[in-house]
Amino acid sequence: MKTTISQQALAEALGKVRSTSPLVHNITNYVAMNNSANALLSIGASPVMAHWTEEMEAMTAIAGALVINIGTLDGEWIEGMLAAGRAAALRSTPIVLDPVGAGATPQRTATALRIIEECKPTIIRGNGSEIMALVNADIRSKGVDSSQSSHDALSAAQTLARKTGAVVVISGATDYITDGTTTHTVEGGSPMMTSVTGMGCTSTALVGAFAAVCPDALVASTAAMAVMSLAGERAAAYAKGNGSLQVGFLDELYNLTPDTL
Amino acid sequence: MKTTISQQALAEALGKVRSTSPLVHNITNYVAMNNSANALLSIGASPVMAHWTEEMEAMTAIAGALVINIGTLDGEWIEGMLAAGRAAALRSTPIVLDPVGAGATPQRTATALRIIEECKPTIIRGNGSEIMALVNADIRSKGVDSSQSSHDALSAAQTLARKTGAVVVISGATDYITDGTTTHTVEGGSPMMTSVTGMGCTSTALVGAFAAVCPDALVASTAAMAVMSLAGERAAAYAKGNGSLQVGFLDELYNLTPDTL
Amino acid sequence: MKTTISQQALAEALGKVRSTSPLVHNITNYVAMNNSANALLSIGASPVMAHWTEEMEAMTAIAGALVINIGTLDGEWIEGMLAAGRAAALRSTPIVLDPVGAGATPQRTATALRIIEECKPTIIRGNGSEIMALVNADIRSKGVDSSQSSHDALSAAQTLARKTGAVVVISGATDYITDGTTTHTVEGGSPMMTSVTGMGCTSTALVGAFAAVCPDALVASTAAMAVMSLAGERAAAYAKGNGSLQVGFLDELYNLTPDTL
Repeated sequence: MKTTISQQALAEALGKVRSTSPLVHNITNYVAMNNSANALLSIGASPVMAHWTEEMEAMTAIAGALVINIGTLDGEWIEGMLAAGRAAALRSTPIVLDPVGAGATPQRTATALRIIEECKPTIIRGNGSEIMALVNADIRSKGVDSSQSSHDALSAAQTLARKTGAVVVISGATDYITDGTTTHTVEGGSPMMTSVTGMGCTSTALVGAFAAVCPDALVASTAAMAVMSLAGERAAAYAKGNGSLQVGFLDELYNLTPDTL
Repeated sequence: MKTTISQQALAEALGKVRSTSPLVHNITNYVAMNNSANALLSIGASPVMAHWTEEMEAMTAIAGALVINIGTLDGEWIEGMLAAGRAAALRSTPIVLDPVGAGATPQRTATALRIIEECKPTIIRGNGSEIMALVNADIRSKGVDSSQSSHDALSAAQTLARKTGAVVVISGATDYITDGTTTHTVEGGSPMMTSVTGMGCTSTALVGAFAAVCPDALVASTAAMAVMSLAGERAAAYAKGNGSLQVGFLDELYNLTPDTL
Repeated sequence: MKTTISQQALAEALGKVRSTSPLVHNITNYVAMNNSANALLSIGASPVMAHWTEEMEAMTAIAGALVINIGTLDGEWIEGMLAAGRAAALRSTPIVLDPVGAGATPQRTATALRIIEECKPTIIRGNGSEIMALVNADIRSKGVDSSQSSHDALSAAQTLARKTGAVVVISGATDYITDGTTTHTVEGGSPMMTSVTGMGCTSTALVGAFAAVCPDALVASTAAMAVMSLAGERAAAYAKGNGSLQVGFLDELYNLTPDTL
């Protein structure tokens, strides 16, 4: 794994997650819930999954970060997402948005844009197609997988960052993390990671954990992507397929400390 | 694994899934979503899980197959299933139905029959009890596990196939795949597979992937069941229990190619 | 693992689960559904996950136990939980309640108390914070993780047991199982188990399996916690992190028989 933030910044960020164990409130999709919760526990954070509109204000009040992921959305969940997002915004709690499948259906693109408009997320993380779809409504993605390389989406990410004030993360062979002016990169991971469902969603959850403890959203996002990449490439070294990669990835994340980076 | 379709037909079908990576739209249960998505990725397909009524038409428009699984249904999801099913039928997109728990409650049997009536699925895959319950409303199953052998359900499957025009798949120690006239079989797998939750649902998802690329629904279904059986028996050879079988099964599926069949 | 019930009582209870394979009806959270279903299969029970209000009466009619877990609740699910709980109570089917996150939000505490009031659960299992929050509304937990040791919550558990007539289980480094007068304990397991999401929910599901076959709720609950603890400590002996612990835990449970206890 190679990244443009310093080894020290990365170690400090990881150390802070492990020492403070932030509560990360996730409204995420059914497919990735178990993986995301386990990955947050691996890294030392405390996950809670909750989407009921009536408890969003109370849950947001105790959380260090809010993660909104639209992977398996419907009308009732959108209400929960917006309620939580507005409550988090009022408290200046960091909000991370994962616009899963933006570009696959107009309803997803519109929902992601509505959340951006109403909740002003601190960080937006998606794949190339999703980020491009948020800037140019004509981009269509193939379901939830990207049809665009992360590099081709970089200028869209910069535009989106400048327009929304959010840090924008595009994950791919190279991850790009930009606030519209400064752009960090993370290289590494393994192509086999694209065969494990919910890996993108898991990275969004980890961004939430880092954002809860690092005031600098650019550093927080880059650290999270670096940790994903490192755990993924270590696990891929011995994984026999996507089944054992999913397991090994959690183990590697679990054993990742400032000292073992 | 032993099957009545030719090695060549099987290799061709698998090769087509891997080379075209069809988008498979799943409306499936909460228990099996992660497994099904991973198994689809293992085999080279591109899974999307989506159930929101408002986006069903748009999602169906880009999918190569639709999988409807009623494992954890409720009123709102039924609306989504019917909306997607009707849209897919209009486009002649293959529809695969998994009537999970038909026979366990009258509501499930009725829902499965309503989907058959309104959406005209191309393929129906269930266990012995479920298939029998769709033909004879007096059959009761024990929850979602079968109380009938696949062989005892064969004549019900043939009746259901002739009545609905669908290919009907009964999974069990021997899998039967029938259009009411021709019946294929797949033998193999491992009894330990019945201790991994969602294995039946996963096979239905794989049937969707093969149906997206093979115009012959009988061949598509048989190929999917053969691949399940093969990956399951290979993983069972070294699995220490249902935990490692779930992991090994995905790994074996991931490594299955026309050459390694 | 050390427990205050006899080795013979434990072996008998486990033997009964394996020989009768009770149907356990779960209304549980999205995060733990797959794990809970697999753990029930590991132990020889037959799981069904179902929450649709309209089928609750029919599903309850065929189940040996009902497990209600409020981990990812919302308004519609609460209706399903209450419908199932009332139907099970009428049939004297054992009901196990897991008040996930009671104390984290007032809505969760209120929902758990409402289910206790209306459905009269046979057994309530939670962590220290959750059990304390059901007795003293001023206790706040940190999301779904406990901020209280199981020992500190013991007197609250005894109070709750006497007030509700339920057996109350507090899980932690030492598990306490009490009917308000007699208290059993289980020691063992592994601290690494707290890094696997849904382990508490899984133990609640297993309590359901044992309650379905053992008329003595105190013995049933203690046996379930003992089996959790044993499988957890055996798997932790070789697990490299929370990923492989989750897999190994299921394998160990799968291989646990009256003879291998």
